[in-house]
Amino acid sequence: MKQELLEKLTQKQERIIEIRRYLHAHPELSFQEENTAKYIAAFYADKACDVQTNVGGHGIVATIDSGKPGRTLAIRADFDALPIQEETGLPFASQNFGVMHACGHDGHTAYMLILAETLIEMKDQFTGKVVVLHQPAEETPPGGAIGMIRDGCLDGVDHVLGIHVMSTMPTGEIAYREGAIQTGRASFKVKITGRGGHGSSPHMANDAIVAASEFIVALQTIISRRLNPFDVGSITVGSFDGKGSFNVIKDAVVLEGDVRAMTEATRTLIEKEIRRLLDGLAVMFGITYDLDYENDYPVLVNDVALTEFVAKALQEAAMDEVTTITRCEPQPPSEDFAYYAKERPSCFFYVGAMPADGIFYPHHHPKFDINEASLLIAAKAMGTLVADYTQK
Amino acid sequence: MKQELLEKLTQKQERIIEIRRYLHAHPELSFQEENTAKYIAAFYADKACDVQTNVGGHGIVATIDSGKPGRTLAIRADFDALPIQEETGLPFASQNFGVMHACGHDGHTAYMLILAETLIEMKDQFTGKVVVLHQPAEETPPGGAIGMIRDGCLDGVDHVLGIHVMSTMPTGEIAYREGAIQTGRASFKVKITGRGGHGSSPHMANDAIVAASEFIVALQTIISRRLNPFDVGSITVGSFDGKGSFNVIKDAVVLEGDVRAMTEATRTLIEKEIRRLLDGLAVMFGITYDLDYENDYPVLVNDVALTEFVAKALQEAAMDEVTTITRCEPQPPSEDFAYYAKERPSCFFYVGAMPADGIFYPHHHPKFDINEASLLIAAKAMGTLVADYTQK
Amino acid sequence: MKQELLEKLTQKQERIIEIRRYLHAHPELSFQEENTAKYIAAFYADKACDVQTNVGGHGIVATIDSGKPGRTLAIRADFDALPIQEETGLPFASQNFGVMHACGHDGHTAYMLILAETLIEMKDQFTGKVVVLHQPAEETPPGGAIGMIRDGCLDGVDHVLGIHVMSTMPTGEIAYREGAIQTGRASFKVKITGRGGHGSSPHMANDAIVAASEFIVALQTIISRRLNPFDVGSITVGSFDGKGSFNVIKDAVVLEGDVRAMTEATRTLIEKEIRRLLDGLAVMFGITYDLDYENDYPVLVNDVALTEFVAKALQEAAMDEVTTITRCEPQPPSEDFAYYAKERPSCFFYVGAMPADGIFYPHHHPKFDINEASLLIAAKAMGTLVADYTQK
Amino acid sequence: MKQELLEKLTQKQERIIEIRRYLHAHPELSFQEENTAKYIAAFYADKACDVQTNVGGHGIVATIDSGKPGRTLAIRADFDALPIQEETGLPFASQNFGVMHACGHDGHTAYMLILAETLIEMKDQFTGKVVVLHQPAEETPPGGAIGMIRDGCLDGVDHVLGIHVMSTMPTGEIAYREGAIQTGRASFKVKITGRGGHGSSPHMANDAIVAASEFIVALQTIISRRLNPFDVGSITVGSFDGKGSFNVIKDAVVLEGDVRAMTEATRTLIEKEIRRLLDGLAVMFGITYDLDYENDYPVLVNDVALTEFVAKALQEAAMDEVTTITRCEPQPPSEDFAYYAKERPSCFFYVGAMPADGIFYPHHHPKFDINEASLLIAAKAMGTLVADYTQK
Repeated sequence: MKQELLEKLTQKQERIIEIRRYLHAHPELSFQEENTAKYIAAFYADKACDVQTNVGGHGIVATIDSGKPGRTLAIRADFDALPIQEETGLPFASQNFGVMHACGHDGHTAYMLILAETLIEMKDQFTGKVVVLHQPAEETPPGGAIGMIRDGCLDGVDHVLGIHVMSTMPTGEIAYREGAIQTGRASFKVKITGRGGHGSSPHMANDAIVAASEFIVALQTIISRRLNPFDVGSITVGSFDGKGSFNVIKDAVVLEGDVRAMTEATRTLIEKEIRRLLDGLAVMFGITYDLDYENDYPVLVNDVALTEFVAKALQEAAMDEVTTITRCEPQPPSEDFAYYAKERPSCFFYVGAMPADGIFYPHHHPKFDINEASLLIAAKAMGTLVADYTQK
Repeated sequence: MKQELLEKLTQKQERIIEIRRYLHAHPELSFQEENTAKYIAAFYADKACDVQTNVGGHGIVATIDSGKPGRTLAIRADFDALPIQEETGLPFASQNFGVMHACGHDGHTAYMLILAETLIEMKDQFTGKVVVLHQPAEETPPGGAIGMIRDGCLDGVDHVLGIHVMSTMPTGEIAYREGAIQTGRASFKVKITGRGGHGSSPHMANDAIVAASEFIVALQTIISRRLNPFDVGSITVGSFDGKGSFNVIKDAVVLEGDVRAMTEATRTLIEKEIRRLLDGLAVMFGITYDLDYENDYPVLVNDVALTEFVAKALQEAAMDEVTTITRCEPQPPSEDFAYYAKERPSCFFYVGAMPADGIFYPHHHPKFDINEASLLIAAKAMGTLVADYTQK
Repeated sequence: MKQELLEKLTQKQERIIEIRRYLHAHPELSFQEENTAKYIAAFYADKACDVQTNVGGHGIVATIDSGKPGRTLAIRADFDALPIQEETGLPFASQNFGVMHACGHDGHTAYMLILAETLIEMKDQFTGKVVVLHQPAEETPPGGAIGMIRDGCLDGVDHVLGIHVMSTMPTGEIAYREGAIQTGRASFKVKITGRGGHGSSPHMANDAIVAASEFIVALQTIISRRLNPFDVGSITVGSFDGKGSFNVIKDAVVLEGDVRAMTEATRTLIEKEIRRLLDGLAVMFGITYDLDYENDYPVLVNDVALTEFVAKALQEAAMDEVTTITRCEPQPPSEDFAYYAKERPSCFFYVGAMPADGIFYPHHHPKFDINEASLLIAAKAMGTLVADYTQK
Repeated sequence: MKQELLEKLTQKQERIIEIRRYLHAHPELSFQEENTAKYIAAFYADKACDVQTNVGGHGIVATIDSGKPGRTLAIRADFDALPIQEETGLPFASQNFGVMHACGHDGHTAYMLILAETLIEMKDQFTGKVVVLHQPAEETPPGGAIGMIRDGCLDGVDHVLGIHVMSTMPTGEIAYREGAIQTGRASFKVKITGRGGHGSSPHMANDAIVAASEFIVALQTIISRRLNPFDVGSITVGSFDGKGSFNVIKDAVVLEGDVRAMTEATRTLIEKEIRRLLDGLAVMFGITYDLDYENDYPVLVNDVALTEFVAKALQEAAMDEVTTITRCEPQPPSEDFAYYAKERPSCFFYVGAMPADGIFYPHHHPKFDINEASLLIAAKAMGTLVADYTQK
């Protein structure tokens, strides 16, 4: 069956690219992907599978049932875009001002639809079920995964697989890693309030800018002294909103920050320490504070056994288009695929998509683009895994 | 002569108040006092004195010449208003939206015009000359004094006197002090530039918010360790413009600050130390900086001998309206009268103007008001000094 | 009487110098001035006055009673030395290793003994009483004054006068100032305790050196932001006892510091803020602290009326040896004469003692010396004041 | 051969323990191990091997030549002790006051001597050579390895193996890891010099304690902002030598610190950043600094292939005494075995030595002890590897 599946995918390569370009031209922001969801649902309209729409928002779940007993594998593709004004100059560039598929989710959806179509065509040849998760809102916390899970998209599912195309990795390469593979994240917003006053009379006021600066300086000690040096963590204050008049002591400022960690223990520790520093700061400088602290995407942890299966299956497939399969380093960014991985043994891996000329832009860049040849590789890689998984 | 002068002023009290109310209703911002300047010029139109307009901008200089040899005394009143929306509810409240005479300059001009008129009427009775300086733009650096001086308003002048009415001091009180009486000031704006990046990869970026926070923390040591504890100085960072995205490392931030000192040596020291800290910060954190540093109003230093003359003359005048004449403490704010005091022996003193019911608002407050009775006191006090000065 | 007194003092100049040299050669540390006290007591042994020894330690109080009703004036001279190894090379240099009269207290005692002797000789010529306070332990908190006051040395006393000779002021000058004239002082010792550990595992420890450094940095904001810029204050951490092994995280460090202020309100404010910072630090960094905080010498405040009397009396005396009498600036160091001034209207003033060649060393320097001619001036100045005071 | 070797070792277990106890009772500090070196040399005196003494100091190299061609394997045991006063109460406790084998090097040497003896007895049965490295001074930088290498101890050697017994790991466990396995280290000592002065006049001085505190605070940003969060690094200031008088501004302080990293790139980065911070500090605060910075033990990197050989060989040996063989996490401390690993493919691994009752003290603790049963395990583990290595 696997061979037939891969051949069918090769024949459908043009259609994958066509779908990708259509989606690229019509991007929609997280939680607003109404038309994309309609497009996906329409694709399945005449196909022999069960389709649920509005799963946890704009999510769509297509269940392909072999009719035979067996395990159930979920495969996930996300479909939201970013608030970026495209600068690629591509003929199929975004038609929605200020919105762009600058992370490859258009490609994810394109390969997944064609893979699903093919699996439906061949469903007699495997056992168990394949559940296709078309997920919205990956880019924006709280993310789309959490709602789909709440609406039952993992009911009956045994394992979950996901792919991300990577503009920074040569096309032809596939990379995987077991264990913690992408950081968990938290964000915070804290208003620090002192008391305003005139610059010439600091003693009559309570300078919020000085207190906030001392806080930011003290914040560095969490990473440098409270973390195990063998653990991964970072805290960034990305926004210090303290614009005012040069000679007026500022009464309040608002800081916004970002936290990353590679274990839940570290993420919990950082939160506890940030709260502790603010409590102390309040006493030290007589300020008050108002903190919104939100843990969003968890650490993405690939299941060791499933990742071994993925690595072995891909190696054995020996696809022509694939030049290298490597165990990679963990990745700094966060992914809401992590929520699936908390519920079921899962594996998320990477498919190289660097343009053929080697000139690439990082994800989220206005000139971001992928090598469309990577989409067939993604389809074949996921197809291989589905075939191997459902035939055992 | 003095007695006659004071009596004439008493008789003209109504007209002082009338003028003050007109000016109060028609305030104009610093450097935009076109109509106020026309109003003042028109006042002198039919008077026996020499009037120069457009002196250093909207400044007006009225020279009252006794025709007899003698010294020349300049007396100064400022006439600009503030960018504040008035909330007094007075019948003669500001008719210009967002602009208000919230510092008493309307009163300064009103008493000065009537005093000038009276001095013109009596000019045969004194010797030398009186030069009336109607100065615009006291509230906004670089201030109006510097331009008037550049245009020659102090040519031939021996001494300069000025009054400020004070809503925070009971009406009936006059206060003076020799030596440094109001702070000198500087302002600065510094852009600190690192390198932007993603919150999860701090090592690829150079966090401008952290560098700026370390700078603000280090800035405190100038006051705490570099200043003589017996000297006066303050540094305020009133604006920290670093708004950005919570998870993006900020590439650059802009700080704006205010410096106060009671000696030029201290002001110079603070500037030198701020520059030194920034030079060191650049090395420490690999940032670059772009500093605009401007010394504006100097320390206002009253001449010792002239202040003694003022104190003695006022005490001897024994005016009914004046209950107390005291030597006061130095004042935190800055005044561009300081520029006259750098050129000529000068004395700037304070006339209490607290409303009769004792309920007062500080200067620059939207509900600021003065007791109009203070204006006659100002006129008589300045009149006394002119009389004593020009008759010796 | 005054003229006779001054003449007698002039005749006894050699004896003043003789006594000073003896005391200089035999210095004793604060609270250990046993022999100096014996020497002083012996001096009075055959004199017609009441002498109390062991007043508040090694203090000696000699009461000279005119037998006539009148006011009581206390005059004070201190007699302790410093833990400094003398390097003057004088023939009468210290014979006690590591101990030196490097602040002029030898001279204070010398002029005072001869003045007392003379006043005793002439006691019929004045009214009221003169109380001579020979005070030990001025150099070391809690100081000797407080004990003498507790033992009643001010009972019945109306006013107190004191002199300090100054090596930094030309001989022939006398300086005074009303109001706050020398700083008040506090000292503190704080142990900051974290948890020790190995340098390679900071998360298992709690770094006391980092917490203490953050504390010292935050301490600067008390002076820079909490004090009125027109007030005087300083905080110095003079000792950071944190010696350890380079690769072992320090569990505890001990800081010792010094606080100065020119008003009690400022001194109180600084203490409150230091405690607040430590409370906040404990929360921020999870450390504990143990603080000894001691207010020692208060601000020395000269009584306005008494200081006017002193200035006037000295000016009228028109002594040949005195070239200038000036109102001086406040002085940074602290003085336990301040305790007398809290109990009674007092005046402490300065007598220039710069060596004739103009080459001088500051007080507490191993080469410190005074012009011995200053001692006759001190005796005459104090004698003048006693005469004027007791004859009114 | 392997079976015979292991049996012989089992029979000699008593002698291993005997030697260990003798060495434990006679510990010597790094670079002062004269008697221990003599003891080791004496052990080999009558054995059929080539022995070199005084190799790079007190080092001893025993070469066991099979007489047949083949590869050369070096096996290393260190033999220095620590400046710790023993508190174990053992009958064979240290007889040298203040010196203690608190890290297990006595055990390393004991098992190694008996293993060497046995290998000499059986040298006909293997090929190539075994070089036994008895290394002094592991505990104190620059360490003993570097000198032995300089004196040629690795000449002709193909691979190097080493063992550390671990009181914190259950006896019966063996742990290994390929790649970076122990941190690289640097140490620094920096004198920061300002200018001394009196606490009441900070502006006349330049406070070294404040500058050093700002430095320590800024130091935290190297770990928090300059390091890749996925890299390992730590900086500890373990010593802040700033003891002084509470009211005297400190002119100079000395800081000593420790740096750890898991790659040479990180170690280099940290050094560069520390130097940069100090250069900037000098400008900011007008201080001077004098820095001794020494990279000592490098990152210890186990060769991947050799570590695979070790893991496989140990697993296949299936020794009764060994319950578990695991791939462990990297270890925080540093080891000068790292120098061998920079020169030759090497592997350093861990043998559990926790006392049978489960009560253990960490290495370098005054009550540190090992389960002596671990020494036979170490001997057998190393024997197995020698046998497998030399018989291929």
